[in-house]
Amino acid sequence: LVEREIIRVVSPGTFVDEADDKPTRFAVLYVTKRDWALVIAELATGSVYFTEQRVNARMATWIQEEWERWHPQEYLTNWETDILLAGKAVSDGSWFNKILSPRDLEQFLAQRFKTAGLRTFGLVEHPTAQAALFVLWRYLTDLEHREPVHLTNILWFHPGQQMAVSARTLNQLHVLSNDGPSLLSILDKTLTPMGSRLLAAWLERPLTCQSQILLRQQAIKWFMTRLAVRKQVRERLQILGDLSKKVSRVALGMATPKDLVAIAKTLATSLDIYQMVQDMPPDLLPVLPPLDVISDILLRLRVLKEDVPNKWDEGNIIQEGVDAQIDRLRSIITNQREALAALEQDEKDRSGIKTLKVGYHRTFGYYLEVSRGQTHKVPEDWRRRQTMANAERYTSDALLDLERTILEALDRVKTLEYERGRELLLLVQTHSEPLNQLARWLATLDVYSAVAEVAVMRSYTFPEWQDGSTRDMEITGLRHPILETLTPHFVPTSVTLPEDLRVMLITGPNMGGKSTFMRALALNVIMAHIGAPVACEYLRLPVFSGVYARIGADDDIYRGQSTFMVEMEEMAWILRQSDRESLVILDELGRGTSTFDGMAIAQAVVERLATPSAPLTLFATHYHELTQLADSHPRMVNFTVEVIHDPKTGQLVFTHRIISGAASRSYGVEVAELAGFPKTLLTRARHLLTMWEEQTQELTQPVQQ
Amino acid sequence: LVEREIIRVVSPGTFVDEADDKPTRFAVLYVTKRDWALVIAELATGSVYFTEQRVNARMATWIQEEWERWHPQEYLTNWETDILLAGKAVSDGSWFNKILSPRDLEQFLAQRFKTAGLRTFGLVEHPTAQAALFVLWRYLTDLEHREPVHLTNILWFHPGQQMAVSARTLNQLHVLSNDGPSLLSILDKTLTPMGSRLLAAWLERPLTCQSQILLRQQAIKWFMTRLAVRKQVRERLQILGDLSKKVSRVALGMATPKDLVAIAKTLATSLDIYQMVQDMPPDLLPVLPPLDVISDILLRLRVLKEDVPNKWDEGNIIQEGVDAQIDRLRSIITNQREALAALEQDEKDRSGIKTLKVGYHRTFGYYLEVSRGQTHKVPEDWRRRQTMANAERYTSDALLDLERTILEALDRVKTLEYERGRELLLLVQTHSEPLNQLARWLATLDVYSAVAEVAVMRSYTFPEWQDGSTRDMEITGLRHPILETLTPHFVPTSVTLPEDLRVMLITGPNMGGKSTFMRALALNVIMAHIGAPVACEYLRLPVFSGVYARIGADDDIYRGQSTFMVEMEEMAWILRQSDRESLVILDELGRGTSTFDGMAIAQAVVERLATPSAPLTLFATHYHELTQLADSHPRMVNFTVEVIHDPKTGQLVFTHRIISGAASRSYGVEVAELAGFPKTLLTRARHLLTMWEEQTQELTQPVQQ
Repeated sequence: LVEREIIRVVSPGTFVDEADDKPTRFAVLYVTKRDWALVIAELATGSVYFTEQRVNARMATWIQEEWERWHPQEYLTNWETDILLAGKAVSDGSWFNKILSPRDLEQFLAQRFKTAGLRTFGLVEHPTAQAALFVLWRYLTDLEHREPVHLTNILWFHPGQQMAVSARTLNQLHVLSNDGPSLLSILDKTLTPMGSRLLAAWLERPLTCQSQILLRQQAIKWFMTRLAVRKQVRERLQILGDLSKKVSRVALGMATPKDLVAIAKTLATSLDIYQMVQDMPPDLLPVLPPLDVISDILLRLRVLKEDVPNKWDEGNIIQEGVDAQIDRLRSIITNQREALAALEQDEKDRSGIKTLKVGYHRTFGYYLEVSRGQTHKVPEDWRRRQTMANAERYTSDALLDLERTILEALDRVKTLEYERGRELLLLVQTHSEPLNQLARWLATLDVYSAVAEVAVMRSYTFPEWQDGSTRDMEITGLRHPILETLTPHFVPTSVTLPEDLRVMLITGPNMGGKSTFMRALALNVIMAHIGAPVACEYLRLPVFSGVYARIGADDDIYRGQSTFMVEMEEMAWILRQSDRESLVILDELGRGTSTFDGMAIAQAVVERLATPSAPLTLFATHYHELTQLADSHPRMVNFTVEVIHDPKTGQLVFTHRIISGAASRSYGVEVAELAGFPKTLLTRARHLLTMWEEQTQELTQPVQQ
Repeated sequence: LVEREIIRVVSPGTFVDEADDKPTRFAVLYVTKRDWALVIAELATGSVYFTEQRVNARMATWIQEEWERWHPQEYLTNWETDILLAGKAVSDGSWFNKILSPRDLEQFLAQRFKTAGLRTFGLVEHPTAQAALFVLWRYLTDLEHREPVHLTNILWFHPGQQMAVSARTLNQLHVLSNDGPSLLSILDKTLTPMGSRLLAAWLERPLTCQSQILLRQQAIKWFMTRLAVRKQVRERLQILGDLSKKVSRVALGMATPKDLVAIAKTLATSLDIYQMVQDMPPDLLPVLPPLDVISDILLRLRVLKEDVPNKWDEGNIIQEGVDAQIDRLRSIITNQREALAALEQDEKDRSGIKTLKVGYHRTFGYYLEVSRGQTHKVPEDWRRRQTMANAERYTSDALLDLERTILEALDRVKTLEYERGRELLLLVQTHSEPLNQLARWLATLDVYSAVAEVAVMRSYTFPEWQDGSTRDMEITGLRHPILETLTPHFVPTSVTLPEDLRVMLITGPNMGGKSTFMRALALNVIMAHIGAPVACEYLRLPVFSGVYARIGADDDIYRGQSTFMVEMEEMAWILRQSDRESLVILDELGRGTSTFDGMAIAQAVVERLATPSAPLTLFATHYHELTQLADSHPRMVNFTVEVIHDPKTGQLVFTHRIISGAASRSYGVEVAELAGFPKTLLTRARHLLTMWEEQTQELTQPVQQ
C-alpha cells in the first residue's frame, strides 16, 4: 500500500472554476463579546472583503443582510445563534480557539500580505477582523495544503446602508473623542443615557440612504418647529432614567425594589410623552410596543410603595390595600404594638416601678427595663434577659406571648411581600422585549429633540440633497461646528463646487484656515448624513458613500513605522477604498520626506484624483508648485485663504475666508516670529529666504526665455 | 477736600530701584491638592521664573531650598504651613479665590504675554503655574494701578538637583505613557505599588547631581552582583502589599481589621528583608525608622487573629490568650452551648418527643422544635414561639436562661474586642510617621532590586561619567530600550561625539532609523540620570542639565493653532530654555510650511545651535541642502543612516547604523511602494522625480561654470 498525501480538497465554497463567472465565496464570521467581524473571501478574484462592527441589537439583522448580499457557499463561525444562515457550516467553532495574541496576529498578517503594515488595508485598529482573517488563512491553508497567497486584494465594507467612515477618520476629525470638545459633545443635549448612546452610534455610522436621512430630518424639524412640545417632552425625558439598563438589571437578577419603582415611573412618564407626540407622523419613530401591554405592566408595578427599601427581604415593599393577607398581618402588628403599651402600663401598676419601660433589642427581643435601684420591686414571675450597667432587663409570660405574635406576623408579612416582589420581577423579565422596544422609542425621541434643541440654539439649517442626476455642491456660510462654540468670532466661508470639480487644491499661509475649512466641510457632511441640520447658512450636497481624512502626523515607532510610512499607508488605503461618491480630505501630503520625493508623490496623487471617476478631494498643501497643475487639469481648481495687508499697521490680516486662486507664500517666518523666535534668528531666516528666492528667479530666467 | 487716587504703592518686594544691582523679587506660591507652583518675578529685569511640581513628601524641602536661592522680599501664598518663609507675606490667601477657569486663564495669559500661545513659555500643560502667574499679574496690577507689562521674559526652572525634562518631552519620548510600551513599562519590575510609584517619580525627575546618581548606581550594582539576595528580597517584596495606602486608610478612619492584619504581615516581612540587606552600605538607603518601634508595633498587632472578618463589631478579631476577660466570656459561650445539647437531651427524655431539636433563629432566638404530629406531647410549661408549616417552636424557662447567658456573653465579648481593635487603630495612627518612613525605605529597595533585575536580564551596563573638564561622549552599541524588546533583531549603533561637536545633522532615507537613534540616545541619557544602567555596550557621558525633544506634529485646532504654529512655539521654547549642558532632539524641523520657509527657519536654527555655547543637538532633516553647512561650521557634523544596495536582489537594505556622511536621497517613492501605492501612480512619481532632478542639474550647470 502506498501512503497518499491529500493534495487538494475540493469543496463548494473554495472551489474555483476558471470558466465560471460567478465567484465562489467563503465566509468567516467571528463574534467576540465586543465586536463581530465578517470576512468574505472571493477565491476566484483573490479579493477579501471584511467588516468589523460592535455587537448590538441590530447585529443579527445586519449579518442576515450581508449573508443575502454575499451568499457564501460555505462558512466558518463561532456565533451561537438560532438564525439559519444559508450555505454550509464547514466546521465547529474550534478554529477560533487557536487565534494568536494581538501582536503575533499583526506580524502573521503583515507577513502574509506582503506590505510593511496593515494600515494599507485599514486593518490596524480592527483586532476582531484581524482574527477572522487569520482563521480564514489557516483554514484555507489546511484545506488546500498550501497558503492562499493569491488573496491580496483586501477591502473593507460597511454593512447595510451606512457611510464608510473609519475609526481613524472619526478620530482625526474629532467626531467622537471623549477628551476635549468633539462633534458629539456639541450635539449631545440628550437627557437620557439611552439617548446619548444612540447619538454616538448615529455619528459612528452615518446613513447613505436618502429616504432614511429625510425621515430623520423630518422628525428633527417636527421638534424644531414645536417649541412648547419640545420643552414638555424634554422636561419628561429629564426624569426618565435609563430604562434599558434597569431592564438588564432585572434580567441579570440584580434588580432591587428601587429599580422596579424606577421602571414604573419611566413607564408612566413614557405614556405622558406618548400623549405629547401623538401628532407626530408615526413613520418617523421606531415601532412602539402595544400601549396596553405597557399600561398593564405599569398597573401591576403600581402595587409597589413609592419609598421602597434597597432589599427584597425587609418588607415595606407593597402598598396598603393590595393584598388582604398583608394588610391583615400589618394590622395585627399595629394592634400588638398598642397592646405592648397597655402591658407596660399594667406591669407598672402591678409592680409599682414608675420608670418601667418596654423596649426592643436586636439580639434579645422585647424586654421590660428596670433601673438598678428598682430591681427589688420586680415581680417573681419575670425572668431576667440582659444585665446592663445601670439596669436589668426582664421578660414575662405576657410579653413573650405578645413578642411571639408580633415576630410571627412580621416574618410572615416579609415573606408575602418578598413573594409579590418576585412575581413583579418575573413580570418585567418576561416583558423585556416590549420594554426594550419602548427604550429604543424613547432614545430616538431623545436624540430628535436634543438635536432640534442644538439646531435652534446654534442656527443650524437643513441641507438640501441633490437627486442622483448631479453631484454639484453649494456651500454658503459654512462654519466649523466645534470651533464656532469656542471662538467668539468665527468667520463663515462660502464656495460652490460644480460636479466636474474633483480636486480643490488649497494653498495659503500657515494658520490661514485651510485645515479648519476642510474639517468644517467634512464635519458638516457627516452631520448631514446622520439626518441632522448643519452649521451652514445653506448647504446643497449629494449623498456621499464615505468620508476619508488624512490629517496630522503620527509615527508608530513600535510597529517599526516612521511618520512618513504611516502617512503613505493611510494614503494607499484611501486610494484603494474611495470611489466617485466619496469625500477625501488630505492635509499636507508628503511632508515626511525630502522635498522632491514629497512633491513627486503629491503631484502623482493629485493627478490620479483629478480624473472623472475619482472622489471629491480637498487637498491642502504648501507645495505651491502644484498650483500650476490646474492649468492642464480641468477637474482641479486652485483655492486659497484670504490674506490682506493692512496698510495702516503694515501687518498681515488673515480673514480665514476660502477664495479662488493660488497662494505664492506661506509666511512661515512670520509664524515663527509670532511663536516667539529670537529676533536675530528671524533676521537670518528672512535673509536666507530673500537670497534663495532671488537665486531661483535668476536660475529659471534663461530657461523661460 | 480733594479725593486723591493712589498712583503707586512702593513696597520692598515690588520697588524697582534703577541704581540697585540686586534685583528685588516677588514670589507667588500656589498649592493645590495635586500640584504646587512657584512663580518668582524679578521686577527690575522683567523676568518671571516659574515651576510646577507634584505635591509630595519632599515638597517642603524643595520650597525652602528655592526660597534660599531666590530670597523673595515679599510673597503671596495659599500654603498653610508652619514653616517660616523669609520675607513678608503681603496678604492672606484670598487672592487665590478669584482664579479664572482654565480656558479663561489661558486666554488672559496669552493676551498679556503678546504671543499667540503659551507653549513658547512651556506653560501649556501647567495649569497651577498658570494660575500662580495670573495671581501675580492681578496683584501687581492692583498694587501699581497698571498692568506689569514689562514682565515678558518667562522662564521655567526646576527645583533642587533635577534635570529639566518637560511633560511634553517625556511624552514624545514615551518615557511614562500608560497606553503602549514605555520606558517605565520596560523598567518597572517592581513588586509593590509603592515601588512602582517611586520609579515613575524617578523617571519624571532625573537627577543632575553626580554624587546622588553614583549612590543609586552603587545600590543597583549591589543587587545586580548578589543574585541570591536579590531573589530572596524580591520573594519577600512580592507578598509585601501597599503599606503607605494601608496607613492612609487607618488615618482616614477607613481601615478594616483585615487592613491591620495586612500591616502586621508587612512589618514582619520588612524585618525579614532588613536582615537580608544588612550588608548593604547604609548610606545607599533612605533613613529607616528605629527598628524597636517597628518591632513593638508588630508585637502589639500580633494579638489579631489571622483570619479576621471585614467589620469591627462582629467579634472574632482578637486571638486566644490575649485578654483574660475575652477568654472567660468565650469559654462561657462554649460551656453554655454544651449545656444546650444537654438540655435538648433532657427535654427529649422528659417529653418523649424523639425528634425534638434545639435551634436558633435570628429574630426568634433559641427554640425547641417539635414536628406537627408530636405537639400533643409538649409539656405544659413550654411556651409557643413560632408556628411553621410542619412544626411548632417553643421555649422553656431553662432555655430562656441559657439563651440569656449566651447572648449576654456574646454581646460583651464583641464590645471588648471592638475596644481592643480601636486601641490598635490608634496605635497605628500615632505611628504613621515611622510607618511611612518604612514604606519609603521599602519602595526604594523595591526600585533598586527591580532595576537590577531588568539590567541583568537585558544586559545593561553602567555609564561612566565625565568629570567637569570635558563634555565628550562615547557611545558604543547603543540600543533603543523599548524597541529592542519588541523587535527580534535590533541593530545597535556606535558613535563618538567630541566636546566641540554641537550639532549632529542627520540625513537619510525614511525608515532608515534616524528617529530611532535620536530617541534611543535621549532615553539612555535619561536612564543614566536616574542612576540606572543603560542599554549600551559602553556609554561615557557628561551630566546634562536637561533633555528637550521636538518630535511629531500635533495641531491644536481648538486653541486656534496650526501644526506649524505648535512646532514653532515648541522650538522657540527650546531655544529660550536650553543651555550648553542640555541635550536637544529635533526631528524634521520646518515641515509644516512651504519648502523655502521651512528651510530658511531650519538653517537659521542650525546655525544658532552650531555655536560654542549652544546645547548638544541631534537634528534629523530631509533638507539635504543643509548638509553643506558642515563645510563652514566646524561644530556641526553630518551623519546619515547606512543604506546598502544588495546587488543580488537589486533591493535597498537599511542596516539602521548611524555613520558619518550626508545622504543624497530620501527614498520616499520606495516607501510609498512598500505602503501599497498603485503601480501606475508610482511610475508617474518616479518619472516626475527623474525629470526634476535632471532639470535641477541643467539649471545649476551654467552657474557652477
